[in-house]
Amino acid sequence: MKEENKPFFAKWDELDRGRYCIFKYYFETPFDPEDTAAHLCREQSTALWNRVGVEEDFRPLYGAKVVKLKKTGRIVHPSIESAYAKGSSYTQVEVKIAHPHVNFGPKFPNLMTAACGEGAFFTPGINAIKLLDIEFPDGYLREFQGPRFGVKGIREIVKVNGRPLVCGVVKPNIGLKPDDFAELAYKAYLGGIDATKDDEMLSDVPYSPTKERVAAVISKMHKAEDKTGEKKIFIANITDEVDKILELHDMVVELGGNAVMLNGMAVGLSAARMLSKNTKVPIFSHFDFIAPYTRHPHFGLTTQVVTKLQRLSGFDGIIMPGLGDRMNTTPAEVKENVETCLNRWGSVRESLPVPGGSDWAGSLLPMYKAFGTVDFSMVPGRGVFGHPMGPEGGARSIRQAWEAIEKGVSIEAYAESHKELRQAIRAFGK
Amino acid sequence: MKEENKPFFAKWDELDRGRYCIFKYYFETPFDPEDTAAHLCREQSTALWNRVGVEEDFRPLYGAKVVKLKKTGRIVHPSIESAYAKGSSYTQVEVKIAHPHVNFGPKFPNLMTAACGEGAFFTPGINAIKLLDIEFPDGYLREFQGPRFGVKGIREIVKVNGRPLVCGVVKPNIGLKPDDFAELAYKAYLGGIDATKDDEMLSDVPYSPTKERVAAVISKMHKAEDKTGEKKIFIANITDEVDKILELHDMVVELGGNAVMLNGMAVGLSAARMLSKNTKVPIFSHFDFIAPYTRHPHFGLTTQVVTKLQRLSGFDGIIMPGLGDRMNTTPAEVKENVETCLNRWGSVRESLPVPGGSDWAGSLLPMYKAFGTVDFSMVPGRGVFGHPMGPEGGARSIRQAWEAIEKGVSIEAYAESHKELRQAIRAFGK
Repeated sequence: MKEENKPFFAKWDELDRGRYCIFKYYFETPFDPEDTAAHLCREQSTALWNRVGVEEDFRPLYGAKVVKLKKTGRIVHPSIESAYAKGSSYTQVEVKIAHPHVNFGPKFPNLMTAACGEGAFFTPGINAIKLLDIEFPDGYLREFQGPRFGVKGIREIVKVNGRPLVCGVVKPNIGLKPDDFAELAYKAYLGGIDATKDDEMLSDVPYSPTKERVAAVISKMHKAEDKTGEKKIFIANITDEVDKILELHDMVVELGGNAVMLNGMAVGLSAARMLSKNTKVPIFSHFDFIAPYTRHPHFGLTTQVVTKLQRLSGFDGIIMPGLGDRMNTTPAEVKENVETCLNRWGSVRESLPVPGGSDWAGSLLPMYKAFGTVDFSMVPGRGVFGHPMGPEGGARSIRQAWEAIEKGVSIEAYAESHKELRQAIRAFGK
Repeated sequence: MKEENKPFFAKWDELDRGRYCIFKYYFETPFDPEDTAAHLCREQSTALWNRVGVEEDFRPLYGAKVVKLKKTGRIVHPSIESAYAKGSSYTQVEVKIAHPHVNFGPKFPNLMTAACGEGAFFTPGINAIKLLDIEFPDGYLREFQGPRFGVKGIREIVKVNGRPLVCGVVKPNIGLKPDDFAELAYKAYLGGIDATKDDEMLSDVPYSPTKERVAAVISKMHKAEDKTGEKKIFIANITDEVDKILELHDMVVELGGNAVMLNGMAVGLSAARMLSKNTKVPIFSHFDFIAPYTRHPHFGLTTQVVTKLQRLSGFDGIIMPGLGDRMNTTPAEVKENVETCLNRWGSVRESLPVPGGSDWAGSLLPMYKAFGTVDFSMVPGRGVFGHPMGPEGGARSIRQAWEAIEKGVSIEAYAESHKELRQAIRAFGK
């Protein structure tokens, strides 16, 4: 290793751990892996560590440091085509880098700059790089409030424990007038759904202003609560320019709304954190603008990092790509994201995981089995609102599916005496 | 083509053009390209277009529509590895989709959701997809203010016309105390640099609070202005949580600061727009968190889209990956981004393009030749602050390089009588 690169290595045991966040990366390089890892540290921290003609060294205090390096394989072609890939073979490397958080502070945009900005993605000699994980010391974590309501807070609204929640995305997702929208939500509430929500494509639009839509739904929601004796939730999508979000939140709350949604990464983690500081109701995130930088297996960021950051930013519920080919995400990845919402994490409350994608009554058992917990929510659209008997039947079919699970019988068997479930199987169960 | 897909096609000439933004995509599919393109429209707009049992059709008003489709090739392997890629060969397709902007409105997060959210990136049968461009109708564009100062406004501050601007990134980028930082900036100003700036990794940090740093630099900047008779700029990096940005801006302006920077996409387009609405000084963007979703040639977004959106959001200057292997970006792509800053675009002012990456005096001629304009800024770091004679010599070497260009002589020839340029060539010109 080059002499100048040695200060970019450290033993984890010998560091003052509370000063560092750990960035875990995968990368590929045709060059020496140690020197390249040092270069990665240098680019993301002290690119130059002294002034010309001054005896000083900023590396010990401000330099990022490799604390673990593992060569995991060799490949002939780099994972990202590039005119600048120079090599006939590439070492695959996993590194843990301890980055002093004094460089960026407990602020999302600055953290992102350090972890996945110019430094990480323009280091010479690195052809493909993926941010796999970030670990935070307790003191850093405590600077963030995290979810204000979390799983427990959401369950308290509907007073439902011991089973997964069911949230229907009202469909048709765009084009409906507020009253028509509310009527569909009403039917789904009657059928037994816990929550309904706006689609991520439906926000404050001229043909359905948020104010009118929320007012219409809330009035119908209360009617359904009276009829069913169950408490319900409506998740209003308040995705908008960041300087409008608090205003929309306040309006929703004033109208009696009891949950809001942001298209999380399209709005930004920082806007989510701002809302979370001020919110009176649980906040859900939808997974817009995540796939473009997470889908590639060897480049970008992992979805788990994004889920972790979303939880940290204060989302009480996180809608994410779920099981099934449709969502282009492996069961293992879905499971890891569910766990990232629910695992113990210092003082940060749990976020409700909401894995979605073309779900219906028949999706409930595979989800329950895969996640091994009832602490998740389904988020069907067509499975409720495209049900042959309409949203009331669609909602009912899902409650019936849970009854079947509780009784330990197959949905097919249970469907014999439950026509909504029978129709659901016929319509969606191929 | 399937019957239900026909309403997702339209003739551009027959549409009410003012109602639509055009999203241009590349995608790959093993299935029928027309049906898949229709599916892409459907997923990003009216996934279901009528209620169960109701005779209605939301597609004419709210559906996105294919207005152009071109098959550009066939490949055997999809460009993104996926367990869900099902095919033995894939058609490469370019489409233009007219999306009714009533669905999202003139709001960045909602626009991003439509153009690169779940709809675009989770359409069944599409293995790789890249958003190539977005075109906006005039009425939609007019909802955005765009850059308040632009190229002209920035030039007015320094009263420099007819040559590229030179902005030095003070290095060492992190670790310096405010006074030491200001002293380096001072030397660079004396040497003839137009502007200095904070590195993207340097924000409001405990060892160099923005307040102290800006105060120190501005005082030295005025001293240098008096000595040189030239006007100067300092670009303060106010990247922070979105609810802190306006406060930091106000503080910088109160201290006499005359420009600010955001790590554009790490903070978000919406926060940039918010700042631009309120700013008293030009705003620059740094290219953090762009590479992860633009680097792949067939997946994600193009850098040109990101540049266009940044210009629309109100950035007066856009720092972007520049020429040279170092920045992993082809000359053609750099040039396109420069043009995206400068081309005529309705009422939207020009943004100053600032292509950067290990530049020094010798980079000026290749840049000038490649872009064919003086309307850009260099943004050297080491090329100024790592110069063997220090930042004053570094800055001087670049002014000398421009004198050489004006006189039509090579920098090598001009260096014979100019020692700063000579030293620059020796240090950086390999």
